[in-house]
Amino acid sequence: MTAKRSERDDVAETMQRLGRDARAAVAILALASSEAKNRALVAAAAAIRDASSKILDANAKDVAEAKAGGATPAFLDRLALDAKRIESIAKSVEDVAALPDPIGRADKEWTQPNGLRFARVRVPLGVIGIVFESRPNVTADAGALCLKSGNAAILRAGSESFHSSTAIAACLAEGLRAAGLPEAAIQLVPTRDRAAVGHMLAASGVIDVIVPRGGKSLIARVQQESRVPVIAHLDGLCHTYVDGAADLAMARQVTLNAKMRRTGVCGATETLLIDRRCAATHLKPILDDLIAAGCEVRGCAETRALDPRAKPASEGDWSTEYLDAIISVRVVGGVEEAIEHIRRYGSQHTDAIVTADEAAAERFLSQVDSAIVLWNASTQFADGGEFGFGAEIGISTGKLHARGPVGTEHLTSWKYVVRGSGHTRP
Amino acid sequence: MTAKRSERDDVAETMQRLGRDARAAVAILALASSEAKNRALVAAAAAIRDASSKILDANAKDVAEAKAGGATPAFLDRLALDAKRIESIAKSVEDVAALPDPIGRADKEWTQPNGLRFARVRVPLGVIGIVFESRPNVTADAGALCLKSGNAAILRAGSESFHSSTAIAACLAEGLRAAGLPEAAIQLVPTRDRAAVGHMLAASGVIDVIVPRGGKSLIARVQQESRVPVIAHLDGLCHTYVDGAADLAMARQVTLNAKMRRTGVCGATETLLIDRRCAATHLKPILDDLIAAGCEVRGCAETRALDPRAKPASEGDWSTEYLDAIISVRVVGGVEEAIEHIRRYGSQHTDAIVTADEAAAERFLSQVDSAIVLWNASTQFADGGEFGFGAEIGISTGKLHARGPVGTEHLTSWKYVVRGSGHTRP
Repeated sequence: MTAKRSERDDVAETMQRLGRDARAAVAILALASSEAKNRALVAAAAAIRDASSKILDANAKDVAEAKAGGATPAFLDRLALDAKRIESIAKSVEDVAALPDPIGRADKEWTQPNGLRFARVRVPLGVIGIVFESRPNVTADAGALCLKSGNAAILRAGSESFHSSTAIAACLAEGLRAAGLPEAAIQLVPTRDRAAVGHMLAASGVIDVIVPRGGKSLIARVQQESRVPVIAHLDGLCHTYVDGAADLAMARQVTLNAKMRRTGVCGATETLLIDRRCAATHLKPILDDLIAAGCEVRGCAETRALDPRAKPASEGDWSTEYLDAIISVRVVGGVEEAIEHIRRYGSQHTDAIVTADEAAAERFLSQVDSAIVLWNASTQFADGGEFGFGAEIGISTGKLHARGPVGTEHLTSWKYVVRGSGHTRP
Repeated sequence: MTAKRSERDDVAETMQRLGRDARAAVAILALASSEAKNRALVAAAAAIRDASSKILDANAKDVAEAKAGGATPAFLDRLALDAKRIESIAKSVEDVAALPDPIGRADKEWTQPNGLRFARVRVPLGVIGIVFESRPNVTADAGALCLKSGNAAILRAGSESFHSSTAIAACLAEGLRAAGLPEAAIQLVPTRDRAAVGHMLAASGVIDVIVPRGGKSLIARVQQESRVPVIAHLDGLCHTYVDGAADLAMARQVTLNAKMRRTGVCGATETLLIDRRCAATHLKPILDDLIAAGCEVRGCAETRALDPRAKPASEGDWSTEYLDAIISVRVVGGVEEAIEHIRRYGSQHTDAIVTADEAAAERFLSQVDSAIVLWNASTQFADGGEFGFGAEIGISTGKLHARGPVGTEHLTSWKYVVRGSGHTRP
């Protein structure tokens, strides 16, 4: 009992110290030059490359533990690193360094008729708390994006990726030291104790925003408990709708990529909707590709009548985010029915239409109320890097502050600077 | 007991109905043309003018009740309407009609090297809940801004302004009817029962954002209880700093206006900071103006030594938002000390420097972390109308989503529309 209480006190003290150090770092970061921030990022990327074998060792530990715990293949895909993924992590950090500094510049300037000159100038949000689960690359991506945008980051890695994240965080600290910036600019919570998350969610006045990244239960916990504003990053139940006017070759390549490029990412398509007008010609070849790639197909009655390889889909399938090599398929009576299905079952994340009919496409793009809507392109483009944001801290499905991929620009606020010559208000 | 329980049920049912009607209105508003929205606003402005005497009668009831309840003069100033203020309410609604429609247009468009074309398109937030206190004009301002930006509004007026707000809301409904838009686009909560606010704060999934407008206790309650995201609109503890290099005539006119133009608004200056270098020459004439205008002065020891008309200021004065004809005055040792005082006691709302020294001004503008910072202009310019936003729903002192005056643009979110030609992600 005594031991337990003292452990709890330790976590509380640790989190208070992280918060204090983060706030001290914020004051320094606000005055840091773009050059210093970029130097830290470039040095961190180099450190990640240098530490590649250390990071792989740490990751092997995480993967072994996850396997022992019975993790799914999709989970292991999110967790596992290899030399190529480590290079891509380092490259992402360099990409963030190469982005324009979002801080300090005026993104709007205007003069009112009375001669008052207004400028809206970008400022950091402050301290950003990131709570994430299995993907270790989030440590580097989120840390880099926060630093670039002048914010201090407190990163809480999932216990499954604790070793990998710790190894990567050490490289970020090395980069900060090399640039003469405070190491507390990017801090990883140094304990796996789940109580740490509760401390972060209660840290109103210390942490300015919480960004949860992970499964639905994590997001739900954060949204329920947090006293700190939340930018919510739900995973996605994404749809690809193949319209009657879709080119078959395009429909095949887009659907295959949308489902199978990587099945464990939030932009992976979970449901294929296909227009009755082209189902007879398009459905079978599309399913050929998916099945050949190892995908399980669960279809509505009409789908199964056209292609008996499909297993029967239950009502629950339409609201299931598989994050795995499974797809649900439904035949619909055109674009309106597709929009209605997405309204009912979707998660307002990312949805695509494949069609040569511009009017149908524009109807879909304007009426589907999702953060990202695509025409003739794969839902797997739902990614800040693909948007040109350099990297992303996640995809927001909330409508406040930032929606869609959240990059450096979205981790800022603004202030209004007003210049007059003795102006008084009538 | 039975009667009480059934009243409680009534409020719950009323609030559920308002929510349902608002969500139904949102779907229609999303498809409404700019013309229809503007027609509704122009008709509402006309209805407000036509109903002027009705609104004044309703307001007289509110004022009489407030007086009987012992309201302060500052409170009565916020509550009371006259013909001029009603005209200004109508005019504000017309100003909102004349603004560009923030919905539907792409505010960013770009093409990635792979040929994917991106557009960031403005969409409404959905249902906005506004909880406010004494100022009846908020009914019209907030309702108009929400409608213009395609949002449905649920307005909860303070019980003090219930009659005035009800009269104004009837005019807004008249405007909506005239334009063929659903009346549920702007709904006033039809009960003074305080339980209604609790229902709004719990209505996650029905209400998308809560905007509280009022005193600190209201904001604190909303921030503590709300399960719905909040855009917080605190009142302001604003400072005017008269630097050693300030022109005396300018310092006099700006300070007098900043404090006394209207004392009950959030942009009113509460504390005057004056540089020791000019205190001997500037302090007395500035206080002459304030005292002649009926302002009470509470000064630090140094202020009182220079001008014995000042009463002694206590430590509590530096953190007091008077919203009344009272000013606290402190002599400081230059711009750094002024910034430090504001960091310690300010509310990150609006702060001004008066100086002819550009370097001192730029230091102040960049280091004071407030939503609005002004150089050689009165803090009373803290107002969306003065910024050219047409009208404002309030001033946000939070850093998320919107900071400073919140106008139509800030009541929107966006979606990303991506157009390709069969793009798949490598």
